[in-house]
Amino acid sequence: MSHQTFKQFWLPQKKGFDCLTLREVPKESPGLGQILVRIKAVSLNWRDGILAIGTYPFPGPDAVVPGSDGAGIVEEVGQGVTEWKVGDRVLANFTQEHIAGRLSYEMGLSQLGGESQGLLGEYFIFPRTGVVKIPDYLTFEEASCLPCAALTAWNALYGLVPLKPGQVVLLQGTGGVATFGLQIAHAAGAVTIVTSSSDDKLRKAKELGATHVINYRTCPDWATEAKAITNGRGVDHIIEVGGTLTLQASFDAIAFNGLIHAIGHITNPDPLGAGKDLRGPDAAFLALDRHCILRGVVVGSREQLQDMLACFEAREIRPVVNKVFAFENTREAYDHLWSSTHTGKIVIRVP
Amino acid sequence: MSHQTFKQFWLPQKKGFDCLTLREVPKESPGLGQILVRIKAVSLNWRDGILAIGTYPFPGPDAVVPGSDGAGIVEEVGQGVTEWKVGDRVLANFTQEHIAGRLSYEMGLSQLGGESQGLLGEYFIFPRTGVVKIPDYLTFEEASCLPCAALTAWNALYGLVPLKPGQVVLLQGTGGVATFGLQIAHAAGAVTIVTSSSDDKLRKAKELGATHVINYRTCPDWATEAKAITNGRGVDHIIEVGGTLTLQASFDAIAFNGLIHAIGHITNPDPLGAGKDLRGPDAAFLALDRHCILRGVVVGSREQLQDMLACFEAREIRPVVNKVFAFENTREAYDHLWSSTHTGKIVIRVP
Amino acid sequence: MSHQTFKQFWLPQKKGFDCLTLREVPKESPGLGQILVRIKAVSLNWRDGILAIGTYPFPGPDAVVPGSDGAGIVEEVGQGVTEWKVGDRVLANFTQEHIAGRLSYEMGLSQLGGESQGLLGEYFIFPRTGVVKIPDYLTFEEASCLPCAALTAWNALYGLVPLKPGQVVLLQGTGGVATFGLQIAHAAGAVTIVTSSSDDKLRKAKELGATHVINYRTCPDWATEAKAITNGRGVDHIIEVGGTLTLQASFDAIAFNGLIHAIGHITNPDPLGAGKDLRGPDAAFLALDRHCILRGVVVGSREQLQDMLACFEAREIRPVVNKVFAFENTREAYDHLWSSTHTGKIVIRVP
Amino acid sequence: MSHQTFKQFWLPQKKGFDCLTLREVPKESPGLGQILVRIKAVSLNWRDGILAIGTYPFPGPDAVVPGSDGAGIVEEVGQGVTEWKVGDRVLANFTQEHIAGRLSYEMGLSQLGGESQGLLGEYFIFPRTGVVKIPDYLTFEEASCLPCAALTAWNALYGLVPLKPGQVVLLQGTGGVATFGLQIAHAAGAVTIVTSSSDDKLRKAKELGATHVINYRTCPDWATEAKAITNGRGVDHIIEVGGTLTLQASFDAIAFNGLIHAIGHITNPDPLGAGKDLRGPDAAFLALDRHCILRGVVVGSREQLQDMLACFEAREIRPVVNKVFAFENTREAYDHLWSSTHTGKIVIRVP
Repeated sequence: MSHQTFKQFWLPQKKGFDCLTLREVPKESPGLGQILVRIKAVSLNWRDGILAIGTYPFPGPDAVVPGSDGAGIVEEVGQGVTEWKVGDRVLANFTQEHIAGRLSYEMGLSQLGGESQGLLGEYFIFPRTGVVKIPDYLTFEEASCLPCAALTAWNALYGLVPLKPGQVVLLQGTGGVATFGLQIAHAAGAVTIVTSSSDDKLRKAKELGATHVINYRTCPDWATEAKAITNGRGVDHIIEVGGTLTLQASFDAIAFNGLIHAIGHITNPDPLGAGKDLRGPDAAFLALDRHCILRGVVVGSREQLQDMLACFEAREIRPVVNKVFAFENTREAYDHLWSSTHTGKIVIRVP
Repeated sequence: MSHQTFKQFWLPQKKGFDCLTLREVPKESPGLGQILVRIKAVSLNWRDGILAIGTYPFPGPDAVVPGSDGAGIVEEVGQGVTEWKVGDRVLANFTQEHIAGRLSYEMGLSQLGGESQGLLGEYFIFPRTGVVKIPDYLTFEEASCLPCAALTAWNALYGLVPLKPGQVVLLQGTGGVATFGLQIAHAAGAVTIVTSSSDDKLRKAKELGATHVINYRTCPDWATEAKAITNGRGVDHIIEVGGTLTLQASFDAIAFNGLIHAIGHITNPDPLGAGKDLRGPDAAFLALDRHCILRGVVVGSREQLQDMLACFEAREIRPVVNKVFAFENTREAYDHLWSSTHTGKIVIRVP
Repeated sequence: MSHQTFKQFWLPQKKGFDCLTLREVPKESPGLGQILVRIKAVSLNWRDGILAIGTYPFPGPDAVVPGSDGAGIVEEVGQGVTEWKVGDRVLANFTQEHIAGRLSYEMGLSQLGGESQGLLGEYFIFPRTGVVKIPDYLTFEEASCLPCAALTAWNALYGLVPLKPGQVVLLQGTGGVATFGLQIAHAAGAVTIVTSSSDDKLRKAKELGATHVINYRTCPDWATEAKAITNGRGVDHIIEVGGTLTLQASFDAIAFNGLIHAIGHITNPDPLGAGKDLRGPDAAFLALDRHCILRGVVVGSREQLQDMLACFEAREIRPVVNKVFAFENTREAYDHLWSSTHTGKIVIRVP
Repeated sequence: MSHQTFKQFWLPQKKGFDCLTLREVPKESPGLGQILVRIKAVSLNWRDGILAIGTYPFPGPDAVVPGSDGAGIVEEVGQGVTEWKVGDRVLANFTQEHIAGRLSYEMGLSQLGGESQGLLGEYFIFPRTGVVKIPDYLTFEEASCLPCAALTAWNALYGLVPLKPGQVVLLQGTGGVATFGLQIAHAAGAVTIVTSSSDDKLRKAKELGATHVINYRTCPDWATEAKAITNGRGVDHIIEVGGTLTLQASFDAIAFNGLIHAIGHITNPDPLGAGKDLRGPDAAFLALDRHCILRGVVVGSREQLQDMLACFEAREIRPVVNKVFAFENTREAYDHLWSSTHTGKIVIRVP
């Protein structure tokens, strides 16, 4: 039994980034079927921001260790664990209990750093099924970018009606899910359309393989433009991150039989609070009229994460890393996440 | 070349049931790949009502022969037709050009009695792929009830994520699609929940096999009741016919991974006119929060119609026929459709 | 820490039923994430027979506790287990590590009583994900019949291309998988065809809902008969338990796009030994010629087991139990399994 | 009514390439729902060879015009045709009646140049649904290569369990289907393995994007090699063109849950004649043991052809054309098809 301690950030309250507190907690040994992982890198998502400021619209403990996306090295292996050995490079699965198949409400309660405790610290004990192997070509920093955003994009594109090469995928913006969606769709032979308010971000999207780009500042009716690009047919998959206020345009841009993947709500960031009474378009009639599918996408399973990593490895896809912060500068990483007009992931390197 | 004529109803204008006019039109012979069918029975749908009063929210000719759902006998066979012979009993496929696979916007323009001309008359010339064989156990009147409403229910339950026995299906009300949905789901081993404002209609639903019934007059929060019936899990398929004003409850009743099938809009019957600015719940966030699917369902293909008839035949499912009208009393059939608090289909027998 | 012991059967060698030995083993407490289950009933499968005589063609320990299909009561709950409590009635999942999604070779090594140790004793310690809840209407004896045979049938009918009501399912014989397949297919609205060499067994199949029966002693060409029943179209699903020597007939009976589910090999019971050089029909050409699918089916996942139990509960399907033996008469149960011309499952009641 | 004639090759008998005869036939006008197409290019398949020599193992007329794969220009449009206009560049769909969805036996009888009459001549009258639009970037010669071989590969990879990026596809040899399969799988982000007896052909496969190549002359146990490449897991999709004599190796190389696509039988080219009694491996047990799927693939539907062309267009995939022959040298084209050790398609340019 170890008497060591390790450093960990936590949020004793969810009232803003000032709540982020460094603490020392005892280091335990892994039990039956568990592994102890030395965390090497953690990446941040928009979810980490709204969690810290208290508008995250899903259940979870009041006092929480944040951090869903982490990569590290197996340092100790519990009894009954045969698939891992000390030294293995591993990546956390966002929804720890979602091994494969359908997500249940109960599984959803095992989402790291929100519904359950997170891993933003030097160590974390996982069940043996809570991690997957990191492909050799990826660094810890790179791998740490993938669990939430990339897997959400993968689940959108392959979780219900699999994307086929030659289909058209529209990505709203250049945030985490959209950028990973672009990289996956490009690798998979799709035609891609990216929207943004910034020509600079669109230029970067082009470098990642975007077939078409639309600046919605100069071309506000991006739905009509997307339909024109597809000769009036519409797009097959839309990564819908805007939510309430972009949904009408998504319905206007979607093809018959297409899928609108509801993965974000950045136009209604506080849907249980300030935005509670915000109304949307008549989605029932629009779904009928456009003969399409609106689907909520909640990250994905361990099996899907492994499938996605096989895709990443096949084409050596690397996440776009915006900036890497030292562990002690975690608060600055949050500020950068929130204030910046960055593209790409923000990573915290854990010593 | 025949010089005969035949009788047919049409709507020279869409300004109400008074526009329904009987006319004589020339009887033609079927061309290459066509068949001439002597219509024996036509059934009516809610769609026929809103079409006649001018609020049908989809494109189509200004002057139109109504009638999408018809059954009859092959009377003459055109050149190059090998699959049909004189005397065959056949049923129209609602979307004439939708043979199998995905529906396109262009195929949608071939929907009988709305987007294209209908068959409410003594004869109709179909392409050889526009009809299917009627199972022996069904009369013409019974068969004529199936093309629109039953196929829509079938497409909901089997078109995207197939219903499995043991799953829970909720049917909103006891209209055409809901009743066929109940009969199909019951035959398929599902648990069924029917909602209605009438205990009498719920009693009839019980006779058709409903596992659970909810009177939403005495139990307005039917979503909570449906969740309770399923031990808090929610239902797997909802036949959503209400639209805008019932959608929030459907989201409240749906299970994780469940499907809300948007097939009607009776709470917003004029979505391009009076109800144009009606707003709905925040469907993008709700789809995400409940991890579910909202899907527009537009009838179905000829292949699906054949699959559905195989199901009907296997269990000798018979449609609930409310009343059969004589051809000359077609106007009364429309009035009955519109005014009545009936359950079951209204059929017009063609002489 | 307990110092108690409990009784358990094992096979120190696999050289026939004489090897079945009763022994006392120490009773342990469940560890982290585990539950201790008091076994109440175990059912036998053909697999148990060939395992004991040494021709089971899959890997596993030389000395093995048999028994894959068991039901019992949770007696003690390990740390970290929240989904189970003492007194819960639970059913083992055949492939312990197959939670959901795709089966891997490694998961296959966790099959109880063969690839890994089994549960034919008074107690068994499961991981918390190794069991599912038994529906209230089933006894322990009944529930114990389901894990291997019923789940295999369910996986066949719903694991790749889901059975639709109205489709035609052919069951080879009246063994465990075939009988469960019949009950499921009947509940699901399918047309069913059962083959057997015994009119008595076919009479029982009729009572379970078989639409058509074929005695292949009096009608050896059952494939032609099955095609005739389906008006020449062929059947959609075949539960293929015979293997090498029935495969040609299965190809002859299958419909275009149909599925032949390879789940047994009773005509080649020792495929790695005596039957190693047995050749079969030209399956590659036959699959092409009949435009069909031959699919190996290996039981199923925990998620599928739960789906199946929901189906069983919806229609209160009860397994056909042939005979229940006392625990001390386990050897007789094996003899009955092997010698008898029984229909239905053989169950061992554990005291 | 036209009194013109046009040139066409036909096979009054199927006794070898010497039977190929040029004849003049009357040129007709298209009827209701038909289009007259000026054929510009026809490509040949192995099927054309075995058809001419009389071992094609499927039904069809004794005297037949060969040619399934043709591209041309719409020259005249029949009554009732709205989707085509004079001058449109169109490509024939191999199975004329297979519009979408499932293939039936009856649809199979409409396969051009075999089960029904073919298009190896200057003109052909199609039903309006018998062709699809050619993407602008493809020449007639290039387009003519696609209907049979490329669509078969597409149907294999996307027709039952869609290929995902990152999965592993093994292509047997470098024939038509295999090469198109390689190009599609490469565009779709898959890992590809190509087998051949020729280092030169493997070098060309590498240029088309093959990730791994295996010369089965120097490495006869290609199945073991393929498993090694995949770290023992096996491959996800195998394009199985060999048939009887390569099937055991395909089972040895396949991954759990993988698909063996039975699309050819070149090791048993006369399965109804000389090779009638050829026996294969015990496919039922192998499918079970390797937990995999053997699926017959018969070209594909018009909907699939359109999906495939969207994929080709998205990445501007061009078929590998080996040699283009003038119409009058059609006999030489057949000889080249049969004798040569070529890679790539053989095309006949029609004047």
